[in-house]
Amino acid sequence: MLSALGILIAALGGMMFFPAIIDISVSNSDWHAFLGGGSISVGFGVALYLAMRGQEGEWNIRRSILFVNGSWIIISFFAALPLYFSSLNITYADAYFETVSGFTTTGSTVLSGLDDMAPGLLFWRSLMQWLGGLGIVAISITILPMIGSGGQKLFFLESSEQSDNPYPRIREFAFKITLVYVLLSVACALAYFALGMTAFEAINHSMTTLSTGGYSTSDASMAHFDSVGILFAGSLFMFFGGLPFLYMIRFFSSDRSRDPQISLYFKGVLIASVVLFFAKQALSPGDKLEDFAVSLFDVISIVTTTGYGAGDYQTWGPLFWAFFLILTFFGACSGSTAGGIKQFRFVIAWLIIKNAIAKLIHPNRIMPMRYGEKVVDEEMAASTLSFIFLFFATFMFFAILLQLAGLDFVTAMSASATAIANVGPGLGDIIGPAGNFSSLPEICKWLLSLEMILGRLEILSGLAILMPGFWRW
Amino acid sequence: MLSALGILIAALGGMMFFPAIIDISVSNSDWHAFLGGGSISVGFGVALYLAMRGQEGEWNIRRSILFVNGSWIIISFFAALPLYFSSLNITYADAYFETVSGFTTTGSTVLSGLDDMAPGLLFWRSLMQWLGGLGIVAISITILPMIGSGGQKLFFLESSEQSDNPYPRIREFAFKITLVYVLLSVACALAYFALGMTAFEAINHSMTTLSTGGYSTSDASMAHFDSVGILFAGSLFMFFGGLPFLYMIRFFSSDRSRDPQISLYFKGVLIASVVLFFAKQALSPGDKLEDFAVSLFDVISIVTTTGYGAGDYQTWGPLFWAFFLILTFFGACSGSTAGGIKQFRFVIAWLIIKNAIAKLIHPNRIMPMRYGEKVVDEEMAASTLSFIFLFFATFMFFAILLQLAGLDFVTAMSASATAIANVGPGLGDIIGPAGNFSSLPEICKWLLSLEMILGRLEILSGLAILMPGFWRW
Repeated sequence: MLSALGILIAALGGMMFFPAIIDISVSNSDWHAFLGGGSISVGFGVALYLAMRGQEGEWNIRRSILFVNGSWIIISFFAALPLYFSSLNITYADAYFETVSGFTTTGSTVLSGLDDMAPGLLFWRSLMQWLGGLGIVAISITILPMIGSGGQKLFFLESSEQSDNPYPRIREFAFKITLVYVLLSVACALAYFALGMTAFEAINHSMTTLSTGGYSTSDASMAHFDSVGILFAGSLFMFFGGLPFLYMIRFFSSDRSRDPQISLYFKGVLIASVVLFFAKQALSPGDKLEDFAVSLFDVISIVTTTGYGAGDYQTWGPLFWAFFLILTFFGACSGSTAGGIKQFRFVIAWLIIKNAIAKLIHPNRIMPMRYGEKVVDEEMAASTLSFIFLFFATFMFFAILLQLAGLDFVTAMSASATAIANVGPGLGDIIGPAGNFSSLPEICKWLLSLEMILGRLEILSGLAILMPGFWRW
Repeated sequence: MLSALGILIAALGGMMFFPAIIDISVSNSDWHAFLGGGSISVGFGVALYLAMRGQEGEWNIRRSILFVNGSWIIISFFAALPLYFSSLNITYADAYFETVSGFTTTGSTVLSGLDDMAPGLLFWRSLMQWLGGLGIVAISITILPMIGSGGQKLFFLESSEQSDNPYPRIREFAFKITLVYVLLSVACALAYFALGMTAFEAINHSMTTLSTGGYSTSDASMAHFDSVGILFAGSLFMFFGGLPFLYMIRFFSSDRSRDPQISLYFKGVLIASVVLFFAKQALSPGDKLEDFAVSLFDVISIVTTTGYGAGDYQTWGPLFWAFFLILTFFGACSGSTAGGIKQFRFVIAWLIIKNAIAKLIHPNRIMPMRYGEKVVDEEMAASTLSFIFLFFATFMFFAILLQLAGLDFVTAMSASATAIANVGPGLGDIIGPAGNFSSLPEICKWLLSLEMILGRLEILSGLAILMPGFWRW
């Protein structure tokens, strides 16, 4: 397990040489930071691998849980080094927060002045989100269903695929998913470039669009480009990022099994965008096409937990605050790069409630619940709902801690919401779309880093590690 | 069913003559309002009874659901009449809101100037809460377990008690519970009187203490009396109001079966009070005994969803806002007069999460969940969690509607929370402990009235009525 972690850290260190090259090419001195961080990471990673290889026990569920949570935490310590060493002059807490926000594809930032920032730094931020997005998709088809976190068992490979050795099949899926992810990223970058971004902007934004991360190369985020075409293109590719990747690769094969969450995701986005459009038109009417593009973009940006801004919706009036707060929790599909509660859990929650009400009316009728072609048994129902409960409990718990650490009510509540759901911006003057997280107390940055990781890995497995029973195996 | 409703309306009308007598005795002209409202109610109720008796079908679950929800809505229309006819000069929406807030033992108010108000009106408000509290306890041991709302099946009378005709047993329980409720009210009134309240104040506050309603005879609520003794007495009797009444009557018999929610309720109140006390001492230290009394009183007042104020905790700093918002959702025990999510649901949620984590670690071990001596099966687990989900969904849904109707973020969120949990005061300048609900738009008062009734009857049954299948029986 530690040897695998060593490989990951060394690989990450290797990637730091790309931004180093970019900074050297524009004669920016921050290449030192990347070279230093990269060397430390490669050195440590290789040493760890060499020290531990061949000495470890078998891979089991407990180790998987520990590995997934631990690697996300530990890798971020290394990936934060270049930011810490750089000319940004930020504290290590800031660098770690920015890194975790990147790897979890949250997109909350402590940095401003992005427009004049060294290109290597901008590229590193985008790359972290892109890698984080791919990482979570990979985990969501392998480890999350295995540990059955919050109803994810639904997405365990079909029983016919659960042979004694599922690894070749998983490897095949992992390869195909990576391929789709890369192809969509290239397509997105080309679209952005064709619509007026520079090549560097197009590559960076395509990486943070597909990963539904939301880091930008401009403080004004997507509003910087002032282009309806770019908003539509961004909407489309964020929407792809919020689809289950396993479904996407099957779509191109002969297997066309339906996944009910996709239609809910599609309808939800459409309805919310139209409502937002008409509300915007009624309250502060602007150009119709532009207002629709902004409405669609903002809704998809929040639902897919990307967190790009296409304009500060806070200025539209507090009327929209609750609207966006709820979208924050909604989330896109499972098996995608998006965070949040995920659509399939709402489908199941609705099935359970409908069932409970039907049982009131017909107490003796037996009504099996179906998600697509799969039967939802009582255990899966309880597991799904307990995830939703845990999600809100964790949100509330951190909201209190943040208030104890000195944040005001709206900032604390929305910071906690945006962290657990991996969205990005909060509400209010401080951390709203027009602000950033730099002025928060250090302790809040550590708390939010932890909450982002918990949210990204769907809470339960992170909580398991805290249970004494986990260590008494 | 309608004949039973007629009896209830007529009985309610009859009770309006008590405040009429009180107002006559102090020569206050509002006795007209009570006499008028009482006559209309008695007349309508008797007519309904006479018209419908003997013409109705059998009592079944569907009718029970309709009766419980319908009667709460319709009775409030009649009980609001005296307030509307009185010298208060309020709109009918205000009167209905105040009445629903009374019957649901919420305690939110649109009225100010309580200290100089006609005693008949004050008495009527208190009486509505006292009757509402008794009503919900009665429903919670009869109809709620029958319709199995959100895990309430746990509290269905034990199988040994489910003979072919459970009604004599239920009637016996109903009698005993009423007796306990009356005795505790008398004891509370005597305690308040002994500690310095006038007889009128003592009777009114005892009625709104036991019912965990929270209406007061003074705008300053319990702070008006400035007495540590009264705060301690109030804490004790609110605590009783938050206990399961079925448990209380058993406590005095030989049957001492444990109910795990009671120990959680007790510990939760104690820990929260101590934390609040030390926080208060650290931030704005005052007299130790008084600070402890206020902390204990405020915590119990919120947890039992009473909503009395012992001082405006908002002025202690926004630090405490989230603390109180979370206490709002917590709630006391099921089978009590309190609202909120109820402790037993948290016990079950915790069991489910512990179980889910244990299953991660030991996938093949079978671990039955136990609530006290009863086994919690998967169906009950799903039912409990779906209640918690519905609770938050309803809270969010109304919070959005209230914002669409023009309320600001904090007011809308806390108004929705305080209504669904039947607490009373909200947060912020408008509806916080120092304010009241009178300035809200009319539509918000109707929305909140509906939400209070939904919350009081544990949501699911109210939702059932909205399903087409309910009417296609």
